[in-house]
Amino acid sequence: MSVNITKLENGLTVVTDSMPHLESAALGVWIKSGSRNETQDQHGIAHLLEHMAFKGTKKRTALQIAEEIENVGGELNAATSTETTAYYARVLKPEVSHAADILYDILANSSFDEQELTREKHVILQEIGASLDSPDDLVFDNFQSTCFGNNQPIGRPILGTPETVEGFSTNQIRSYLDAHYHGPNMVLSASGAVDHDALVKQAEGSFSSFQNSDTEAASSASYIGGESIIEDDFQEAQLVLGFEGRAYHVKDFYASQLLATILGGGMSSRLFQEVREKHGLCYSISSFHWGFSDSGVFGIHAATGPEDLQELISLLLQELKRSSEDIIQSELDRARAQIRSGLLMAMESPAARAGQVARQILLFGRQIPNDELMERLDALSVERVRDLAGRIFHESIPTLSAVGPVKDMPRLDEIKERLGVRTPEAAE
Amino acid sequence: MSVNITKLENGLTVVTDSMPHLESAALGVWIKSGSRNETQDQHGIAHLLEHMAFKGTKKRTALQIAEEIENVGGELNAATSTETTAYYARVLKPEVSHAADILYDILANSSFDEQELTREKHVILQEIGASLDSPDDLVFDNFQSTCFGNNQPIGRPILGTPETVEGFSTNQIRSYLDAHYHGPNMVLSASGAVDHDALVKQAEGSFSSFQNSDTEAASSASYIGGESIIEDDFQEAQLVLGFEGRAYHVKDFYASQLLATILGGGMSSRLFQEVREKHGLCYSISSFHWGFSDSGVFGIHAATGPEDLQELISLLLQELKRSSEDIIQSELDRARAQIRSGLLMAMESPAARAGQVARQILLFGRQIPNDELMERLDALSVERVRDLAGRIFHESIPTLSAVGPVKDMPRLDEIKERLGVRTPEAAE
Repeated sequence: MSVNITKLENGLTVVTDSMPHLESAALGVWIKSGSRNETQDQHGIAHLLEHMAFKGTKKRTALQIAEEIENVGGELNAATSTETTAYYARVLKPEVSHAADILYDILANSSFDEQELTREKHVILQEIGASLDSPDDLVFDNFQSTCFGNNQPIGRPILGTPETVEGFSTNQIRSYLDAHYHGPNMVLSASGAVDHDALVKQAEGSFSSFQNSDTEAASSASYIGGESIIEDDFQEAQLVLGFEGRAYHVKDFYASQLLATILGGGMSSRLFQEVREKHGLCYSISSFHWGFSDSGVFGIHAATGPEDLQELISLLLQELKRSSEDIIQSELDRARAQIRSGLLMAMESPAARAGQVARQILLFGRQIPNDELMERLDALSVERVRDLAGRIFHESIPTLSAVGPVKDMPRLDEIKERLGVRTPEAAE
Repeated sequence: MSVNITKLENGLTVVTDSMPHLESAALGVWIKSGSRNETQDQHGIAHLLEHMAFKGTKKRTALQIAEEIENVGGELNAATSTETTAYYARVLKPEVSHAADILYDILANSSFDEQELTREKHVILQEIGASLDSPDDLVFDNFQSTCFGNNQPIGRPILGTPETVEGFSTNQIRSYLDAHYHGPNMVLSASGAVDHDALVKQAEGSFSSFQNSDTEAASSASYIGGESIIEDDFQEAQLVLGFEGRAYHVKDFYASQLLATILGGGMSSRLFQEVREKHGLCYSISSFHWGFSDSGVFGIHAATGPEDLQELISLLLQELKRSSEDIIQSELDRARAQIRSGLLMAMESPAARAGQVARQILLFGRQIPNDELMERLDALSVERVRDLAGRIFHESIPTLSAVGPVKDMPRLDEIKERLGVRTPEAAE
């Protein structure tokens, strides 16, 4: 095994995954805190903090941060998701220690200057505007908020709204950081041309300053379902149809991943073949399964012209119904081969490795070897995947999100009836 | 050097770049034929051919092609650009020969079935619809056609229009393939877990069937410039401002790449710092330089709300004017470091390596070592880059493409005047 793990005294995990043939490294800090850790009046603050981290520290201005990393040809970036936030760098071998120092500095010593905050709020308003202009982004944001409702943080858009973003003070940002960026909640992960002992030694002198205390867990998530239909004059109707999925820790999580691959995970998948290849009804169609720590969402995304929407939905519902009856062994074998290849190819990318092991440590408390993941997939039978399909597509209230020329498309009630959903009415 | 090159008797080049520590490979066929090789009545056919290649051969149906590659966890894809078309696969080591056989089969033995064509045209209509719904895609398509005009193939959208795509017959597609997919025009490139001799031997028994004859060169491209303003009710104004750039083979090509990096190639770049960091006027701003075989385009892309558009354009024009006067050595050094890191990190990705060497062979007739690329960059002085900036931004008619709430923005004539452009009036 190339993975080395050391836990600092403050609970922060340092993990390295050495790839000695490389001249570069990927490294970053992953924090178990994302949009779903926000309270109602903090909506958008996790993402705003992620932006503000780059705006200057006690010893570096925003310009110095950018110049120091780019002077040596490195890159620095960050991303906020529902359950985690990540700050990461790509650098050549001699700059690993320097990059780790910058990552530490922006997380531990950020100045949160008032003027910088005013400007950065305006930047985020532009980011929100761009997401509203993208029918793809819009249909997925509406999908997530319809799955969970706006009363649950997991259902709210990660970027916040113009109103919530405008309202935050530097003190609120600092408080959010102080409440969530704790050692036990953080992983410093590095892959590629890295030396474990050197990184641990450096981290002991810096990252050990994060406090060693528990953080408040996110409120538990509860899938609701429902519909969000936005009529607009786009050329294409964007459609996401979803169902309650499975949490990471649940036994059915792996069967859900296989089912998503069989239905819409590639050119040979059922939906791609039926909807695009046999009927030519769309350019893109795919299915996905998102696991969260205590919930999950299974979904199908497609885009098509208004004249093809009825037929596309009929074929889609037919495939969902069929899947509980006639998935066969060769489809299961192929889905496993696709996932296995994906895992092996990810092993060849330092950025993919650093992220994968960091998320595993945050979510499962340990690194999970690929062999163990494959064993779990190999243990699943065709019957098990069919049975799961029957439960997912027939026992939860669907979530329907559509954007574009969607006036004449079937609504949620009709879809429930045609699928034979056996649940009570949607809660909203 | 890990790169091995063999030219088959029919002029087709086989190049491998072995990365012995990998368990996977990236391989593909790159053809020096893209949208600019189309005549007026062939608009969109290069891309339609790329789609139809996957729709079945004399020995494999479309479904078999998809299943064969995905059964072993591989992926197959393709892309059409202005000057090249690429068909490529990612597979694990034992499947390299199998993937090469599929790539050969879809290019040499495609059936071009009538029914498949009818369906695939409909798929492409959806693809065109989605690109019209994306303000990003739209502003760039309009930019390219304004740079060169719709009378030049290099100015026309790669996807074609619904009308042109609908009109093509299987015979026209086959003729286009027969006229362009010739040995001297093609490179079979593989990187990662690959064996050069084995691949050459296989290619001799298959890829040598492509005819060994010259192809008609694309008509030469001539930059024109002008404006395309589409008022629409998006949240954000999308803006691309461009100028005549430099062809690959021209001495100033490398200085143009450096200039694009200095102006908008990262967080520390002039435009990012001035427009986003100091004024908070946008979420994204970047600059780019596209080289073609006989022309080039230098451009800046930004998106912002209508209330910030005037100020953003003022800052942008100020930075373009300043760049010919005050670019300094440290900015040049940083741009070089960024490009050098990019080259080294690309060396760690089999897909990036396979594509890079294939394009170099098609465009320059040989592989260009990274050291040689860096020598060319190192030879350039600050004065040289400043001088180039002065010429690019002051001596060609600008191209202005804007989409969204852009009613009140300055038009081309005002931008020319404010930049001090010294050219005659635009040709259209």
